[in-house]
Amino acid sequence: MRNSRRSEVDPFIVMDVMEAARAAEEAGRDIIHMEVGQPGTAAPAAARAALAQAMEQGSLGYTVALGLPELRKRIARMYGDWYNVDLDWNRVVITPGSSGAFLLTFTSLFDTSDRVGIGAPGYPSYRQILSALDLTPVDLQSSTANRLQPVPADFADQNLNGLMVASPANPSGTMLDRGAMQGLIDACQAGGVSFISDEIYHGIEYEAKAVTALELTDDCYVINSFSKYFSMTGWRCGWMVVPEDHVRVIERLAQNMFICSPHASQIVALHAMDCEEELEANMQVYRKNRQLMLEGLPKAGFTKIAPPDGAFFVYADVSDLTTDSRAFAAEILEQAGVAVTPGLDFDPVRGAGTLRFSYARETAQIEEGLLRLQRFMAARSA
Amino acid sequence: MRNSRRSEVDPFIVMDVMEAARAAEEAGRDIIHMEVGQPGTAAPAAARAALAQAMEQGSLGYTVALGLPELRKRIARMYGDWYNVDLDWNRVVITPGSSGAFLLTFTSLFDTSDRVGIGAPGYPSYRQILSALDLTPVDLQSSTANRLQPVPADFADQNLNGLMVASPANPSGTMLDRGAMQGLIDACQAGGVSFISDEIYHGIEYEAKAVTALELTDDCYVINSFSKYFSMTGWRCGWMVVPEDHVRVIERLAQNMFICSPHASQIVALHAMDCEEELEANMQVYRKNRQLMLEGLPKAGFTKIAPPDGAFFVYADVSDLTTDSRAFAAEILEQAGVAVTPGLDFDPVRGAGTLRFSYARETAQIEEGLLRLQRFMAARSA
Repeated sequence: MRNSRRSEVDPFIVMDVMEAARAAEEAGRDIIHMEVGQPGTAAPAAARAALAQAMEQGSLGYTVALGLPELRKRIARMYGDWYNVDLDWNRVVITPGSSGAFLLTFTSLFDTSDRVGIGAPGYPSYRQILSALDLTPVDLQSSTANRLQPVPADFADQNLNGLMVASPANPSGTMLDRGAMQGLIDACQAGGVSFISDEIYHGIEYEAKAVTALELTDDCYVINSFSKYFSMTGWRCGWMVVPEDHVRVIERLAQNMFICSPHASQIVALHAMDCEEELEANMQVYRKNRQLMLEGLPKAGFTKIAPPDGAFFVYADVSDLTTDSRAFAAEILEQAGVAVTPGLDFDPVRGAGTLRFSYARETAQIEEGLLRLQRFMAARSA
Repeated sequence: MRNSRRSEVDPFIVMDVMEAARAAEEAGRDIIHMEVGQPGTAAPAAARAALAQAMEQGSLGYTVALGLPELRKRIARMYGDWYNVDLDWNRVVITPGSSGAFLLTFTSLFDTSDRVGIGAPGYPSYRQILSALDLTPVDLQSSTANRLQPVPADFADQNLNGLMVASPANPSGTMLDRGAMQGLIDACQAGGVSFISDEIYHGIEYEAKAVTALELTDDCYVINSFSKYFSMTGWRCGWMVVPEDHVRVIERLAQNMFICSPHASQIVALHAMDCEEELEANMQVYRKNRQLMLEGLPKAGFTKIAPPDGAFFVYADVSDLTTDSRAFAAEILEQAGVAVTPGLDFDPVRGAGTLRFSYARETAQIEEGLLRLQRFMAARSA
């Protein structure tokens, strides 16, 4: 049997890093993990307890395709609490992670060969999922002046059918403020471009609250997840908010493509939303870690970094240190015992000169990792 | 925003039945559910207990994209136990339900406009997922003489790129025996047609063990799930077995499209495989229910049925009773208080003259449902 052309997606380079880190650990080395993009913490304890109880009481069969109504209502309430947005819960759709939401969104909005703009640097799976669906990802090279976020001028002549933005973004952690988001929405609406806002890192913010696209328009798709702020990566539970007249289309697609999101995960998610104390404790760790990174990375010699507005990454320009971020990351792993992600996953063009450092793990690990990076860089420049 | 053409998938008609049943129950009526295609039982108790324990011990973050190695190995071992097939566990891929496996399979094998044969009657989502991916589903009208399974002559002139079979099938419950399966595989290999075998109802068999395509060839995709025999519908955990040289492609697609299958569900699945006693108890119920259906349905007047080899459905030809199965199902719900599925979901052409009866629920429900059907039909013909 042959494989299709649409299946020729790029590998994740970070996976090679993770495999090399695993092999080093197997060989007895101690490795600090600054490569992984997920919290080290579990889902909130009370939410796990709620599932343990639910498992004793019900069969946890299929839910309806759009998800448990209680969860959809609870999410709608959160938009009031977090953003002062009055959201009809019928527009909220539970999805198998934000991954499932991407599949539903792209299928719902785009036909074969349609052009969808994505920021570079950006989350690599946008590009790969679009390709797998025989859609055309269009990399928009963002500039440092625009804090690595796209602006309308970047796609004015790109003839896009859709635009996907992320705020806070992965890998940069930068956010679109209200004005920047409004500018993008206006440009999209003027050009008949479907606007999609990936808000998966909302809640993990440092200086200012992130802006949801729903504050500015109802004519958009918003994608979010319980993976990051709610610390539920492995549960594969996310959500999307779609225009009222798109709900039926999404429902039919979700019925066929997924049947439903994992029932158990929906229960954990529902209860996680009431675990503010534990989630705030996680945030204290991220805040502390971020401060350590912003002090420690420049001390090590990684000086071209911008303070992230949100998420748990620092994206560093290392183009004056290397022209091959992949080899550089391998060198750091080998010599410093710190796993980091080469930028090529996020930006096929300029990523050869960038690295992403994650600070999602516990503070002691971050402290040790920074020390190792400082020693390594001192030895390297000596 | 506009929706895409590829998003114009048909609704599930059974959903309308389920909604009408729900409304009737809300209005105080007692309804027997013979419309739903899932076990009424929970995942095995020991498997749920294993998850409760795992939730106390680990963070249950992402697994690797191909799934937990222990689970992949355990599944490979099952192929030895069940079929005497020696299977390399590296060919086993854990998926978010069989739904996820369909998405991976179709994406891995087919390009835009490629033609994929599916049996009619058959599982409706095959058609809809293919359409959503801009592939071309080709309905193969199977005959009663061939027990509603496709045969090579059905697609000899169809210029197919792929063929999807299901054994035991939904809605008919019929199986492909070794000779029939071999005939299809030979025809596919001779014609360069990718062969896909949906084996989701394996384990739920009555007269003979179902044949896996892996007994006959390695050059195929096999799709299965923990939903049915292992009673884990809502957990969204399935698997596929692919040719050795397709594993890397599937891995990259899965990394991007799903990241991973739900971690908690993989743990439940792993332990469910050792719960033979509880699963056998479920089988005893299905066996008893099947016997009741095969006696009771003809007594009611549904005489054109074939004994199902597997699964938990009876597919009845009611073309001498109605030309509109949808209206007939509504009449049965309204007057008999029994929810059944019109055949139109499974066969857009001949389904106007068929009904699917599910016997997945507890025996007392089946007994009551059959009584009601007998009274209803007696009154109708009086």
